Amino acid sequence: MTADLVGRLGQIVGPAGLISDPGGMAGHVTDWRNAYSGTAAAVVRPGDTGEVAAVVALCRDAGVAVVPQGGNTGLCGGAVPDSSGRQVVLSLTRMRRIRDLDVANQTITVEAGAVLQSVQEAAAAAGRLFPLSLGAEGSCTIGGNLATNAGGTAVLRYGTMRDLTLGLEVVLPDGRIWNGLRGLRKDNTGYDLKQLFIGAEGTLGVITAAVLKLFPAVRSRATAWAALPGPQGAVDLIGVLREIAGDRLTGFEIMSRQSVEFVLRHSSGARDPFGDQHPWYALVELSDTLPHAGLDEVIEAALGEAFDRGAVRDAVIASGSAQATALWALREGISEAQNHEGPSLKHDVAVPVSRIPAFVERTDRALREAVPGIRIVTYGHVGDGNLHYNLSKPVGSDDEEFLVRAEALARLVYDSTHAFHGSISAEHGLGHSKREIIADYADSHGLDLMRGLKQLFDPRGLMNPGKVLPGL
Amino acid sequence: MTADLVGRLGQIVGPAGLISDPGGMAGHVTDWRNAYSGTAAAVVRPGDTGEVAAVVALCRDAGVAVVPQGGNTGLCGGAVPDSSGRQVVLSLTRMRRIRDLDVANQTITVEAGAVLQSVQEAAAAAGRLFPLSLGAEGSCTIGGNLATNAGGTAVLRYGTMRDLTLGLEVVLPDGRIWNGLRGLRKDNTGYDLKQLFIGAEGTLGVITAAVLKLFPAVRSRATAWAALPGPQGAVDLIGVLREIAGDRLTGFEIMSRQSVEFVLRHSSGARDPFGDQHPWYALVELSDTLPHAGLDEVIEAALGEAFDRGAVRDAVIASGSAQATALWALREGISEAQNHEGPSLKHDVAVPVSRIPAFVERTDRALREAVPGIRIVTYGHVGDGNLHYNLSKPVGSDDEEFLVRAEALARLVYDSTHAFHGSISAEHGLGHSKREIIADYADSHGLDLMRGLKQLFDPRGLMNPGKVLPGL
Repeated sequence: MTADLVGRLGQIVGPAGLISDPGGMAGHVTDWRNAYSGTAAAVVRPGDTGEVAAVVALCRDAGVAVVPQGGNTGLCGGAVPDSSGRQVVLSLTRMRRIRDLDVANQTITVEAGAVLQSVQEAAAAAGRLFPLSLGAEGSCTIGGNLATNAGGTAVLRYGTMRDLTLGLEVVLPDGRIWNGLRGLRKDNTGYDLKQLFIGAEGTLGVITAAVLKLFPAVRSRATAWAALPGPQGAVDLIGVLREIAGDRLTGFEIMSRQSVEFVLRHSSGARDPFGDQHPWYALVELSDTLPHAGLDEVIEAALGEAFDRGAVRDAVIASGSAQATALWALREGISEAQNHEGPSLKHDVAVPVSRIPAFVERTDRALREAVPGIRIVTYGHVGDGNLHYNLSKPVGSDDEEFLVRAEALARLVYDSTHAFHGSISAEHGLGHSKREIIADYADSHGLDLMRGLKQLFDPRGLMNPGKVLPGL
Repeated sequence: MTADLVGRLGQIVGPAGLISDPGGMAGHVTDWRNAYSGTAAAVVRPGDTGEVAAVVALCRDAGVAVVPQGGNTGLCGGAVPDSSGRQVVLSLTRMRRIRDLDVANQTITVEAGAVLQSVQEAAAAAGRLFPLSLGAEGSCTIGGNLATNAGGTAVLRYGTMRDLTLGLEVVLPDGRIWNGLRGLRKDNTGYDLKQLFIGAEGTLGVITAAVLKLFPAVRSRATAWAALPGPQGAVDLIGVLREIAGDRLTGFEIMSRQSVEFVLRHSSGARDPFGDQHPWYALVELSDTLPHAGLDEVIEAALGEAFDRGAVRDAVIASGSAQATALWALREGISEAQNHEGPSLKHDVAVPVSRIPAFVERTDRALREAVPGIRIVTYGHVGDGNLHYNLSKPVGSDDEEFLVRAEALARLVYDSTHAFHGSISAEHGLGHSKREIIADYADSHGLDLMRGLKQLFDPRGLMNPGKVLPGL
């Protein structure tokens, strides 16, 4: 039966589109961090939307589950098959065409398998900006960005992937193709169906192409690094920046001292911008479409005002792009640097911006009570209320002893997040890893509606089962 | 049975919340233009969300349809009951509290009945901007803005009501309250349910409150009026403005000569900014959070560049706020001025920005062939691809003779829109007036999904029946 199915899949996608040997499938059944692993009946890589539809219809008729997959860079196991060996991984990576770029309409139409960086580059070549920016941009795909409603460092100004999307093409769970590929900024003709597929992690259908928004290219930039007395300083500083710089504010990241210390220790060439240590830091970026926009003066005025209000202790403005890159490297090196300090427990949460100081105080205190000496690597996107609340074991303690507490520590972070009306998954999605725990924090009527939607779109439960929804 | 129901509704909402006499109901059963009219068993005006839930549950049990209504300023009959006299109008106008304003989080939490202008004013009082702006802002409500995903003149920079919304509170068709009132910019925990209610025109539930985004206050502004050789000039001018002014571009409206001529004829005090006549005009607005942002220089540079490229024939930059207001009055007076020229046939369509010139050429030609001498009042929001394609009868011709052709002329506009992959309802919604015709233009699989969603959320079909979906 499985052999027969694999043969028929091969007839649809051709030899170039079928992988059925364990060696070839290895990179598709385990995630990049080796955190989630499964097996598959086959990996299929269709070459166009029609082939995707044929694959989905065939699997539906055979009662076989389909696991859509892009660059396989997710953090929650949403693109990895289960261990049954009966699921089919549907990789979109051969569908990477840029179908259209309309400068006057400020839109780009791309296939789901296009790598994010290639879309950024195509936009830049046309003098435009596609603003989504995140660590995995060199290998993650637009389809994965859509399926997880990806965020990153530019959400502050440009929004999440949902905000950047005007239209979608989707293969529905029954194999029909829904053509919602419209490049319109206003279209009020019934329910906005595309919104259901964005962030659904492949559980309602397979996104095969999208029309995305472009923006004017940025021609000047200013970057600064500021020392803060605490999280309240970050909230105050971003308030001052918004008032003065307005839309010029395109980046605002904070980092606890612990986060920066790991980078200084493990990243070659990393250097502390200040002689003194400070408990928290902010990385600020302004940008403008004008080539000589006087951004250094604007950022200086804002930092001066924040200093006067006690929100900032010290600050340095990058004198050129090399120094700006070095400052960004301090922020971007955190995740990698933390790996050198033993296992990392990662949490991706969001609370209202105004609640960040109280949230951090409460969560830190609870974590330190639970595990004395725990090292708390908090960093993230203050403008979005989004913190990566990552944890490393106390110095000299045992890995396993720390790891067995992972679930309890996650509970602690999530309980605190929930108390501040926050989200336990700000930008990573639920995938496999958070799909059960969400039941304890979600509105029960909302969960009912989600289960109803899943049943409506995918009554046989064959689209990425075991992901997103608890108990399904 | 109806009397009994009305009595029980009165017990829920109290005497202040129940209107059952024909005189009192008159303003709620006919729209403001007198284009749609019905009757109702009663008009209920609940004072809080609990009362809304009780009303909806009671009507559900009684098998009585509910028609949610805000400021009743819609253009498509979406908030007007049918003529059966059995429907209950649920007016949200008593629920107008601003529940919260969080400056640091840049959010405002308001009830559905709050008038748009009062929300703008509350934001301004806190030094913030709530950017949604449209003609009816003095009487339309946030709930109606949400139900129709309202647009207006600021969509270019700030997006539609959907883009401005972070969270919703909704009474579901079975009377349960879904609490999705979150003020988070990132939250990827399952399907984004709020998106289904936005733009659903009350057919999936009753929106009772929302968390909306605020922006930094604008401190400087520049306004210009430009004469254009044609629609291509508008597309070229907005391209130049985007490249040079970037996010400072917050308004871009175009008007055909015919539109401006009506205003000059019927609006007291209206004056043509130029001595010569030109076929098209653009109204441009830049704004900035900085108080002295040099916007006049930026707008001048852009207009100069556009002039050199042949996109602009002449231009005037407003020398102060009085002149800017006068220029905006030329744009805002069009709809009213057209009423003096006999019946207006209104169409609200969108096409990709790049297709506007070809679309206007084709549509104008077809209209002039169909009705020689027809006066075409085209104006709208070029940055959104959104044109109001309104029609007045030939000079001296008969009203009735023109009105009997209304459906054929609408077909003509919509067929042309459809040929350019556009939308036949850009910002007004479908309501009652377009719900049948949409079936001819929508993707059939998409319509199937919409019908499935309606059935899932409202299996008894009691939430605003006869709206949005064809044949339901």
